[in-house]
Amino acid sequence: MEATMKKATFYHAGCPVCVEAEQQFASALDPKMYEVEVVHLGESRSRLDEAEGAGVKSVPALVVDGIPFHINHGADLSDLR
Amino acid sequence: MEATMKKATFYHAGCPVCVEAEQQFASALDPKMYEVEVVHLGESRSRLDEAEGAGVKSVPALVVDGIPFHINHGADLSDLR
Repeated sequence: MEATMKKATFYHAGCPVCVEAEQQFASALDPKMYEVEVVHLGESRSRLDEAEGAGVKSVPALVVDGIPFHINHGADLSDLR
Repeated sequence: MEATMKKATFYHAGCPVCVEAEQQFASALDPKMYEVEVVHLGESRSRLDEAEGAGVKSVPALVVDGIPFHINHGADLSDLR
């Protein structure tokens, strides 16, 4: 029996703090449990609303199962608009 | 050939923000890559110096491969002394 895959979305803006977090975190999640999507909000501004709707206030942030986690601090979401 | 296990230490202080992060994060890391240790700094004050030495400023925090990541904000390390 297979476990249900959970969704994890890593939002970033290409800043050094973001890149470090991505390299350590997004790739560290258990690939058997999580389907990880990486979203560059500086390039995909159309997804800013989605990120904000999930409770993301700054990047880098990881939304796991709908819950936002802010990892260190690179930039406020408002600075990306 | 087996991959070398990396060390990840999750520092917390039992606060609600910490518990949520622990449940989502510490258990989400790939068990094939990371050996995860969970340290309650409120109960193990002797490890405050170690956490501070790794660059931890607040909990919850995850130190992965020696690099500290602050996840949301529960309490400052100085409040635990």
